[in-house]
Amino acid sequence: MKTILTGVKPTGEVHIGNYIGAIRPALELANDKANRSLFFVADYHALTTVHEAKKLNQMVYDVAATWIAFGLDTKHTILYRQSDVPEIFELAWILACFSPKGLMNRAHAYKAILQQNQERGEQDVDSNVTAGIYTYPILMASDILSFDSDMVPVGEDQMQHIEIARDIAQKINHNYKKAILKIPTGFVQKNAAVIPGLDGRKMSKSYDNTIPAFCDTNKLKKIVMKIKTDSLPPEAPKNTEDSLIFTLYQHFAKPEQIEIFKKRYASGIGWGEAKLALYEVLEENLKTPRETYNLLMSDQSKLDAILADGAKRARTIAQEVLKRVRMATGIER
Amino acid sequence: MKTILTGVKPTGEVHIGNYIGAIRPALELANDKANRSLFFVADYHALTTVHEAKKLNQMVYDVAATWIAFGLDTKHTILYRQSDVPEIFELAWILACFSPKGLMNRAHAYKAILQQNQERGEQDVDSNVTAGIYTYPILMASDILSFDSDMVPVGEDQMQHIEIARDIAQKINHNYKKAILKIPTGFVQKNAAVIPGLDGRKMSKSYDNTIPAFCDTNKLKKIVMKIKTDSLPPEAPKNTEDSLIFTLYQHFAKPEQIEIFKKRYASGIGWGEAKLALYEVLEENLKTPRETYNLLMSDQSKLDAILADGAKRARTIAQEVLKRVRMATGIER
Repeated sequence: MKTILTGVKPTGEVHIGNYIGAIRPALELANDKANRSLFFVADYHALTTVHEAKKLNQMVYDVAATWIAFGLDTKHTILYRQSDVPEIFELAWILACFSPKGLMNRAHAYKAILQQNQERGEQDVDSNVTAGIYTYPILMASDILSFDSDMVPVGEDQMQHIEIARDIAQKINHNYKKAILKIPTGFVQKNAAVIPGLDGRKMSKSYDNTIPAFCDTNKLKKIVMKIKTDSLPPEAPKNTEDSLIFTLYQHFAKPEQIEIFKKRYASGIGWGEAKLALYEVLEENLKTPRETYNLLMSDQSKLDAILADGAKRARTIAQEVLKRVRMATGIER
Repeated sequence: MKTILTGVKPTGEVHIGNYIGAIRPALELANDKANRSLFFVADYHALTTVHEAKKLNQMVYDVAATWIAFGLDTKHTILYRQSDVPEIFELAWILACFSPKGLMNRAHAYKAILQQNQERGEQDVDSNVTAGIYTYPILMASDILSFDSDMVPVGEDQMQHIEIARDIAQKINHNYKKAILKIPTGFVQKNAAVIPGLDGRKMSKSYDNTIPAFCDTNKLKKIVMKIKTDSLPPEAPKNTEDSLIFTLYQHFAKPEQIEIFKKRYASGIGWGEAKLALYEVLEENLKTPRETYNLLMSDQSKLDAILADGAKRARTIAQEVLKRVRMATGIER
């Protein structure tokens, strides 16, 4: 049995690009009963950038509600808040004592800020960098190592974090000549699709081109109906390959629906009709999740109970791992 | 009532220079019933450099036994191990999220290593620097802020750590527009004396010129009798001012003993006799502490019980402070 760990940093309103590109593939893995599955909301990572209490607090519920709404099975998967597992922070310190500072210097996220500072002509290269941002990879290593994780599904840009975690774990095991920490493996999900946004670029909040996952059905329809199309007449055959509508449709529809849609493109379909079909398939897929999401967000006590249960189960694992490390280092005997 | 916090990083065998210069003045303050007094063994700070389990473990007991032996009143003072208070590590992460990286760059200890690397011609300026060493000032800030400390007695070279703690606390209070964290004050004890070692330089393990505080009485006598003196004949009057024997004597003897010793110097005293007097006054002061120390170290279960009680009392405070910060940041509601 492998332990699969997935962490999500709350970032605000989820869009269908997040759902298709990240949430749906991660859920397939998380819900697989062959694995021990852990899923956490990285609220203390969010604290590196979110310094408003209310906002931070609601973002956490938002993530939990989103994933449950999309089908996370919290009976199987241990869903917890990072901040409910204090063991992670103690282990992070132990890891820090074995992490060369150079590891942090080479972290992509940190280097990106350095570059921005340079481009902006900042006097201080470390402007806008907090110790939290700088040592973020260590907390992430602790997130992973605290649970004896075997596999951590990540985006390609996050592979470095897994390598850092491996590196630190190996240093500790080597120093104490014992397999204290499990060496995790990162893996990039092959079916992680890049979903185009309303303007054709990658769907992303920063481009303001998203279709929110949980907006109400009228708003959803309105957004879809506003998708820009070319001026081909309705009866003209349409190309599916450069059609944003078709691409989005494809990610939500069943194979037989896609076949039919493809034929309608070939035989000529009006854009209005195509948009309506897209709206309908989106609505078909998003209706129940939206209802669940709204229900959970309107009465957060249910989420509290789920998160409390997850915290208990998660801590049982983290406590055992931390104890092992404390004994090995001589902090405990 | 002020809260006084003292932290000691375990460093191995204690010598009489530590006792006179640091332990005795700190004890006066700690045992003052007018204050709430906390005293901790910084075992997780020691982990930045001590990567041997047994050594680290015994160093902790050594510190606890030493301070109790010299009179720390553990009924009044809360004596705890840093690693028994997980709240410190969680708060440290929160502090990191508000600590500009520049604060770490300017820390004296880090800058000293950079300079050593430069002098050694190291390619990597950050050679030998771990993330633990680099972010040490943040953990230290958390040590302090976790207990609403008012006053932190420090050596002059540590004032910077207090300033960093103040700085971070102020940033958090300012961000959330509330007095969440108490702003601590460092203070350098005026009576902190520099004790000369056997070679006249400052007594220090790194000079190998120490008189151990807890060696057995025969060894103590042997060390004292070997102190180098000049070749003045016994009957010649001696100068107290450049006499190592007199200086050490002075730190342990009562005023009336000092007066008598001074007169004997003036009227002529043989060096052998002077050394014997020094040995006797040392033995007078160190006998009971040595016995207590040996007793505690031979049965560490007593120390375990004292440290467990201290941890419980310390956590009560740290939990309340952490809760306050968690609420303010929105991690908890």
